[in-house]
Amino acid sequence: MPANGHLTPADLARRARAALPELASSRIEQRNAFLTSLAAALRVNVAAIVNANQRDLQKAAPMPEAMLDRLRLTPARIEALASAIDHVVTLPDPLGQRFGARTLDNGLRLHRRRVPLGVIGVIYEARPNVTLDIAALAIKTGNGAVLRGGSEALATNRALVELIQQALRENSLPADAIGFIDSADRDHVLALLQVENDIDLMIPRGGAELHVYCRRHARMPVVTGGIGICHLYVDAAANLEKATTVIRNAKVQRPTVCNALDTVLVHADIAATFIPALLQYLAADQVDCRLDPGAMEVIAGINAFDQVSAATDGDFDREWLSLTLGIAVVADLDAAVDHIRRHASGHSDGILTDDARTAARFLDCVDSAAVYWNASTRFTDGGEFGLGAEVAVSTQRMHARGPMGLEQLTSYKWVVEGDYHVRP
Amino acid sequence: MPANGHLTPADLARRARAALPELASSRIEQRNAFLTSLAAALRVNVAAIVNANQRDLQKAAPMPEAMLDRLRLTPARIEALASAIDHVVTLPDPLGQRFGARTLDNGLRLHRRRVPLGVIGVIYEARPNVTLDIAALAIKTGNGAVLRGGSEALATNRALVELIQQALRENSLPADAIGFIDSADRDHVLALLQVENDIDLMIPRGGAELHVYCRRHARMPVVTGGIGICHLYVDAAANLEKATTVIRNAKVQRPTVCNALDTVLVHADIAATFIPALLQYLAADQVDCRLDPGAMEVIAGINAFDQVSAATDGDFDREWLSLTLGIAVVADLDAAVDHIRRHASGHSDGILTDDARTAARFLDCVDSAAVYWNASTRFTDGGEFGLGAEVAVSTQRMHARGPMGLEQLTSYKWVVEGDYHVRP
Repeated sequence: MPANGHLTPADLARRARAALPELASSRIEQRNAFLTSLAAALRVNVAAIVNANQRDLQKAAPMPEAMLDRLRLTPARIEALASAIDHVVTLPDPLGQRFGARTLDNGLRLHRRRVPLGVIGVIYEARPNVTLDIAALAIKTGNGAVLRGGSEALATNRALVELIQQALRENSLPADAIGFIDSADRDHVLALLQVENDIDLMIPRGGAELHVYCRRHARMPVVTGGIGICHLYVDAAANLEKATTVIRNAKVQRPTVCNALDTVLVHADIAATFIPALLQYLAADQVDCRLDPGAMEVIAGINAFDQVSAATDGDFDREWLSLTLGIAVVADLDAAVDHIRRHASGHSDGILTDDARTAARFLDCVDSAAVYWNASTRFTDGGEFGLGAEVAVSTQRMHARGPMGLEQLTSYKWVVEGDYHVRP
Repeated sequence: MPANGHLTPADLARRARAALPELASSRIEQRNAFLTSLAAALRVNVAAIVNANQRDLQKAAPMPEAMLDRLRLTPARIEALASAIDHVVTLPDPLGQRFGARTLDNGLRLHRRRVPLGVIGVIYEARPNVTLDIAALAIKTGNGAVLRGGSEALATNRALVELIQQALRENSLPADAIGFIDSADRDHVLALLQVENDIDLMIPRGGAELHVYCRRHARMPVVTGGIGICHLYVDAAANLEKATTVIRNAKVQRPTVCNALDTVLVHADIAATFIPALLQYLAADQVDCRLDPGAMEVIAGINAFDQVSAATDGDFDREWLSLTLGIAVVADLDAAVDHIRRHASGHSDGILTDDARTAARFLDCVDSAAVYWNASTRFTDGGEFGLGAEVAVSTQRMHARGPMGLEQLTSYKWVVEGDYHVRP
């Protein structure tokens, strides 16, 4: 039983908070050295991590294979995680960056300076990679964290957190900065959400239910995200062949993730040509297509497609996370925008068109975290956006939207310099 | 009974949400025209506003004079509010601003674009000026708002909201964008906090109790702020005469506000000279000084000062909001920083010194929303910082810290432009 087994979430948060000044005064070289130590420790301890993970997998065995696969750590996956941490070393340090500098009329000099966000709480499922991602990004940006991973990954996470805390100690950084709720007891989730003052931001990484639960019970701001009902609108002026390719990529390349495509909207003028072609193209990938009445009408006279059916109530409000795709016909851009407003989750939505003016209107009018012109929604990702890594993809509007990388783990302070200025 | 008297907070929030697309697609000229109409309407309707306000004042008469004074609107105050709205017209429009533009290696073009934050909830006390401030800043930045003002100001707020909604209509903007809880029923506060999804940000403007209540019950992010336990540290290398002037300004100029000074920390090397001089200087303003044991020791041999007493437990953890000042002796910069970490509220804290290196260390180590070198803490204010106006002063770390002006009422979206890009 690790030493922190008896600590409550509030204790862990208080300790992480207390570690912040030491962390904030550390140099970037020291925080990068921690990352390098951690990557090395992962490589040295591959066998021990795999062993711990095997214990978790054996206990979790009745889970569906997709969940077991997320929980599983292999030597190759551990190497990939170590490489990802090496990559974080190379990312620029946002701390201390100055912006908004100005001298006021009264001579006061003002600027803003990036500082750590504070202590981050993270509630996640049985995905042990999250433990490492969060620890790496948090420490790089001078933040503390309290982690509550899925109970099925307890042994794995315990092994990883031991390596994290050891790497902190080796580099004279406070081990308390990364707190870990070493218990499968679900009551700790509520206790973590109800910590007063010592957690600045809660990041739930899980399904819609977890997000709703966190919003209801959290006493700190919650980043809502990771749920994407994503749209692509095929305009009349689209290159239809290329459009088909982008749609296939957005739907098929990795259907189980939040930036995968859920609904295609097709301009009425091209529906008769485009929809049959699209259905035929997607049939090769066994995509299950759900058509609105307008789309059904288009294919009414054509030989029946396998895997095509009429959409039912609520089909356009679902995040499919599978090889299912909604298809609807819309009269024009405005109708497409309106459909997206009513059905999207504000994650990733795009237009496919060769008409720049239509594209500009779409990009203006659709207010999702990421809006696309002629690209797959699958690009919404911290790595793809060049942030190097991400702690979450936010679909709420406070603080950070879309992929949250290092910069999004910072706050700022106002620095005011004067000559013994007094306010008149 | 106004038409919206029967609408619940959830109804008002839903209507404000529904008004957002229309607001977002409005031009800045139109939103500025709304502001000009509103300022004009205030001037035309001075008598009606004062009448409504008189009704509120009569009902509220048993309140302390300070509270009545906050509630009171006179023709001169209404003119000042109208002028403030005229000033908001002149501020730059943050909406649509682009930043972080880059082209990724794969050719995708990426930038971020400022968009409205969404719907803001505001819970405030009997200060009708807040109704106008929030409406002006919210509409300027394309946001909706749901307002819940102090019940003592109900008639005044009702009159003001009617002018706001009329000015919206006159400029073809949706009147629902500014919702008003037209009821003194306290249950509506809880109902407002528990609105699901339709409010993006809650701003409580009131005391510590209101903030705690909001954090506990809100289902949306809450801006905590407006509570300042503010410090000035007088370093050994300070110009002592000028330091005295700054301290007096920070304490005396307006003691009832959050950026007023609460505690002076004095370097031990100058305590014997500085503290008696400071006490003498502040005596003229009847400042009630509470001294820690170190400071008491310094004045032990000196003729007793009026208005000076030994600090008692908790005195250094209080926001005084009055002509009271804590004074403590600290060994050095580190001790000052440590005192501030333990006692400050993260609002405004400063150092007075002529030594630039000491100042730089202080500005690095003290992590408050605003940190000062040689200036009065009283400058922490949206107007003073050149933001033109503010909706709140945030002491939490998410989204915005310190004064929140127009920029802090925006979020952003990621705009991605490609050439039918697919993710490999």
